[in-house]
Order: sequence, then C-alpha cells, then structure tokens
Amino acid sequence: MGGQTVLHMNEGNGDLSYARNSIIQNKVISVASEVAKEAILDLYCTTLPEWLNIADLGCSSGPNAVQQIHEIMDFVDQKRRQLRRSSPEFHCFLNDLPGNDFNTVFSGLPELYEKLKAEKGADFGPCFIAGVPGSFYGRLFPKSSLHFVVSSSSLHWLSQVPVNLHSETNVHLNKGKLYISKTSPPPVLRSYLEQFQLDFSVFLMSRSQEIIIGGRMVLTLMGRKSADPSSEECCFQWDLLANALMDMVHEGLIEEDKVDSLNAPCYCPSPEELMHLIDLEGSFAVNRLETIEVEFNASDDNDDDDDDRRGQQAAKTMRAAMEPMLSEHFGSGGIMDDLFYRYGQHFQEYFTHKKEPKLTNLLISMVRKG
Amino acid sequence: MGGQTVLHMNEGNGDLSYARNSIIQNKVISVASEVAKEAILDLYCTTLPEWLNIADLGCSSGPNAVQQIHEIMDFVDQKRRQLRRSSPEFHCFLNDLPGNDFNTVFSGLPELYEKLKAEKGADFGPCFIAGVPGSFYGRLFPKSSLHFVVSSSSLHWLSQVPVNLHSETNVHLNKGKLYISKTSPPPVLRSYLEQFQLDFSVFLMSRSQEIIIGGRMVLTLMGRKSADPSSEECCFQWDLLANALMDMVHEGLIEEDKVDSLNAPCYCPSPEELMHLIDLEGSFAVNRLETIEVEFNASDDNDDDDDDRRGQQAAKTMRAAMEPMLSEHFGSGGIMDDLFYRYGQHFQEYFTHKKEPKLTNLLISMVRKG
Repeated sequence: MGGQTVLHMNEGNGDLSYARNSIIQNKVISVASEVAKEAILDLYCTTLPEWLNIADLGCSSGPNAVQQIHEIMDFVDQKRRQLRRSSPEFHCFLNDLPGNDFNTVFSGLPELYEKLKAEKGADFGPCFIAGVPGSFYGRLFPKSSLHFVVSSSSLHWLSQVPVNLHSETNVHLNKGKLYISKTSPPPVLRSYLEQFQLDFSVFLMSRSQEIIIGGRMVLTLMGRKSADPSSEECCFQWDLLANALMDMVHEGLIEEDKVDSLNAPCYCPSPEELMHLIDLEGSFAVNRLETIEVEFNASDDNDDDDDDRRGQQAAKTMRAAMEPMLSEHFGSGGIMDDLFYRYGQHFQEYFTHKKEPKLTNLLISMVRKG
Repeated sequence: MGGQTVLHMNEGNGDLSYARNSIIQNKVISVASEVAKEAILDLYCTTLPEWLNIADLGCSSGPNAVQQIHEIMDFVDQKRRQLRRSSPEFHCFLNDLPGNDFNTVFSGLPELYEKLKAEKGADFGPCFIAGVPGSFYGRLFPKSSLHFVVSSSSLHWLSQVPVNLHSETNVHLNKGKLYISKTSPPPVLRSYLEQFQLDFSVFLMSRSQEIIIGGRMVLTLMGRKSADPSSEECCFQWDLLANALMDMVHEGLIEEDKVDSLNAPCYCPSPEELMHLIDLEGSFAVNRLETIEVEFNASDDNDDDDDDRRGQQAAKTMRAAMEPMLSEHFGSGGIMDDLFYRYGQHFQEYFTHKKEPKLTNLLISMVRKG
C-alpha cells in the first residue's frame, strides 16, 4: 500500500464525507486556537509585517480546511485595529496531498471572501488563498517564504507504511493487527518509531528552509502521554477495527492474509519522542509542548447515553478518515458497510465498559531560530 | 444566468470531458509557444532572477493545464544551461474559477514532478506549483509578485452575461440567438462590447498591480479580424447552436423563451478593440499583437473527409466547453445528447458548404511599463 496515494479523506459533503465527520478534529482545533493566537500575535506585534504568509499543512477538505486560517486572520485583524494600523495583506496557502478533495475546499472560497468582506469591511487584507498540493514530508514552498505555519491532526500520518513489518522469509510480523498493539513484537514497534523519526525529521528540515527566522509553527497531532507506544490511549481504535476485521475473517468474508498484510501508516508519538527530534534537527525552539485530552465522543450531542448509537457514530467518524485506505486494500467490493457496522458494534461494547474514552493529542508551538 | 458559477469545463477524463476535447486550444497554444519563448527568454536574460513567479490564468483542467508552465520552464532551463548558470526556482500558479476541476489538475502533478526530475536532473528548480481559485477579473496575487503571466483561450469569456440584453419592458432583444449575430439589433452589440471593455480593463488593472515592472504577459483569446462584431468568423458556431436549439423549439421540446433568454458570456474582440483598451489602461507596452487563424478541424485526423463524423466531433468539442453553462440554463433533464447531436448535424451541413472554416485567435505579448 503506497501511503501517499490513498491518504486522503472521504470526498464531498455527503453523510460519510470527512467534511461532515470531523468533529474530533474540530475539538482539537478549538483547544489549539488559543496557542495559535498567542503565537501569531507575538509574531505580528514584534515584526508588524506588511504581509503575512500563512500555511495550513494537511488542511483536508472539510469545514476545518479554512477555519484555522480564518481564525488567524481574525486575531491579526483585531490586534491591528487596536494598534490603529492598516491591515497586512494575507497570503494563505492550503496544503494537502494531491489526492485531497481541493474542489470542495475551493468551492467554499467565494463565500469565505464575501464573509470576510462583510465582517471586516473594505480596509481588510486583501487576502489571497491558494492550494498547494503535495506531501509536507518534503519541500512545498520557496526558501524563507512563510511567516506562520499550522498543521492540525495531520502529522500522525506517516509518509508510508513502515518498512520491515515482515520477516526475512516474508512472514507478516503484525498478524491480525493494523497498528501497534499489546501483542505486536518489538521489531514492529521499532519499525513504526523509525518511520516516524524519519518523516518528522524531514518535515522539520523542510519547514526550517521555508519559514523565516522568527517565524512560528503551531502543530497538533495524535499522540500519547505514556512512554509505552502500545498503550491503550493511542491503540484502542485500531484494535477495535482489527477485531471487526478478524470477525469477518472467521466468517470467511475476508482472507486472513489480507488483514495480516495491512498496517496503518500512522504513529502516535510521546512528547519526549517529539522533543528529541526537534532538538536533533536544531532549527526550532519550542515555546510550548502540551498534551490535550479529547473525549472520544464522536457525537455532537454530549448527552447521548445510547452506546449503540455512539458506537455507530464513532465508526462513521473513523470511516470518513479510513475508508479510502481500506477500500484500496480490500477492493471496493462492498465490504465497507458490513465492516463499519461491526466496527460500530465493537465501539459500543468498548463504550459500555469504558464510559469516557479519551484520545491524546500533542500541541507544539515553535519559533524558527536565527 | 450567473456567469461565474457555471463557467467551467466538463470535469474529469471521460469521453465528453474538456481534458479530452481541447484540441483547438492546443493548436493555439503551440502557435503561441514561440512568442512565449521570446518573451520569457528576454525577461530571463535581462534580469537573471534567482526565482521566477509564473502564473497561468484560466488554466482549465485538461492536459493543457500544465503544458504551458512546463514549456516555459523548459525554455528557461535550456537557456540557463547554455549560460552555465544555476537553475532559478520556479514558483508556478495555476488559476481558474473556483468551480474548475482542480482535483484532476492536481492529481497529475506528482507525474509532472517525476518527469521534470527525470528530464532535467537534480540541479533543476526546485519547482513549486500551487492552485489559485478565483476570477482573473479581479486581484488574485500580491502586489508586484509575478514575473510572467500567460493566459490561453480564456479571456474571451466575460465575467457575466452582458446586462441590458432586454428592453425596458423586459423583452429579450437577442431573440433566437445566443451570441451576436447578423440579426442582432445594435443595443445587443453595444452591450456585448461594453461588458468586454469593462472586464478586460479590470483584468489589465489587476495584472498591472501584480506584475513587476519589466514583467511579461502573453495572452491568447478568441477574436476576429473584421471590424464587424457580427462577422461569420466569430459567430458561426453560436449561430449553428442557436439553429439546433430553435429546431427543438419548433418541435416543442424546448420553450422559445428559454432560448431567447440565453446569451453566451463571451466576446470576440478585434485587434483594434484590444489595443484601444491597453492604451487606455496605460500600464503595458505591446510587443506583439497578431491574429492566428486556426482551422476548425476538431478531429486530430487531418485527412478526415467525412463531414458527418467531423460534424459530430465538432459538436463534442464544443460540448466540453459549453455543457455546464447549457445544463444550468435548461436543467439537467437530458436534452443535452439530443441537442449536441443536432448541433453536430448543423456543423456537418456547414462543413459541406464551407470546407475549411477557420477560427480567429488574437495573440498579444506585453511588457509591464516602468
């Protein structure tokens, strides 16, 4: 499975689209918003630039796609009014992989431009928004061209499935699992960590060339608090999906080898693992590194006590992000509805025993050193 | 009919897509290629910049979408090798309306990057390609940020259908026609001209702010040689489509009022009309202004003597560009197949009488004055 070709969210605006099933990511964004505000205002007030080049890396295609750059422009616009200064120009870049549904993102831009004009009047901006298709595990922008970079809920996705997840005799090492799990042998843990180290280092090196000295970067990604990469906080949703798939193997609906050979191209690092890589690369000073715990309540309705419905909603939320990858592997032969229904049942069972499951996200605010 | 919302080409890569039916546009691009070469090399050799910001305005979604920027990079790369200089960075911007199928354009970029690497080796570029959704009848880029702008076969599309195409008592003035025609009354001609004058002036003013002094712009658009805006060279394809629609009116398949109220948002200017507007705006000096006659042979096969097949192929070519606009107006109730079959028959009849119909394109090469 080539990570780059299938790593995109479900397209469009339909019931199963990422656009309508990205509530968890929204919560992380709103928690991270205050930290982004602190960073952008510090940058703005110390440099008072005539224009601000802002990039959102891994913007995806939902309403989140422009929410962050909209907020960042809001913060700056309020501050410059307080300071009685004219508006800087905003040059915004929305990045994601070439397979991302940019059409849906772009179709919303005329409305955003109208909204900005109505909210802020004619003396705002101007604001120019471009799409930049490509992998952030590599260069995307000219040298020293960016003032501010954000990336939300994207950097836990690896550039590819880790190599060496099978033995020299081509035996799958992570049998019956899709990600690191309590039963994964040490080489599996090592392969995942090494792929993350490589990818995150390339990410930092690429951004260090693109961000001006004094420029800022605020990142959130899925992670873990525990030193143990197989801790439940970051593995349970993959374990439940593996369980659903193995049910289907036992019923003869899927070949076991298809499950054994599938491994998710993602990694949930610990704060220490991140800090180590940032120190090693050396271009960025860390202002903040925090863990955010987000309730895994995939429904908008916080009073929803119906575990069955919560289970199915959780599966739907995960489906928006996982379906393209799973369809690529299992074919589009229509096992998806069955699989995600079963996944929902496993979620339901899990919710019955564990009333308040939480996901850990890491939040880092950095400045490009001189 | 709101021009901006429906002005995009047929999506994807299918049999009726713009991607597979843009042969005429290709011919214009190849004729214009030499002029673009002259302009970019003059710019490059006189300024030897470390980076080149290049924009293609109205890139559409076919293979043409990246062909021009690819060629421009080729010209510069050959020259800098002759001069034994290191490669400039290329920052390329592909613009079209937000409804354009950018997903198809972006999905081809990984292949383009691979090709550039294979053709030119590691010492090329780097090259960064972004998509810029928005109308070129307005600002799209920061001030003084572009070195080189191209636009091919796009500027004959207006920002909207001309206003005042009906009388004070709301009678349609251009009855039974879709564009200027021999039977159009003078107010129709005036409305079309005025809309073009407004749009092209806004285009020039926007670009004059975005292009650096000494920067270049090479444009091609549909036009005419004649001083008469109703001359056959620029009107016949619209007349034939109107004839096909009126056939369907007479058979009771379409309401006459629906045809009377439809007018195409495009205009084919004469060289004199263009020069007048460029002089009036005042920011650009014209190096070249040429007319290009392109054979209206919509088939790739130049020996194709079968008028029936040529007629249907011509209708298919026009369909790729016109269908979204026509569907918006007539509804997607399925008259399109019937309409374009009849359109093909009218083309066939036309080809029988006029063996070598030609379309006129205008080519302008300009430099941003100091």
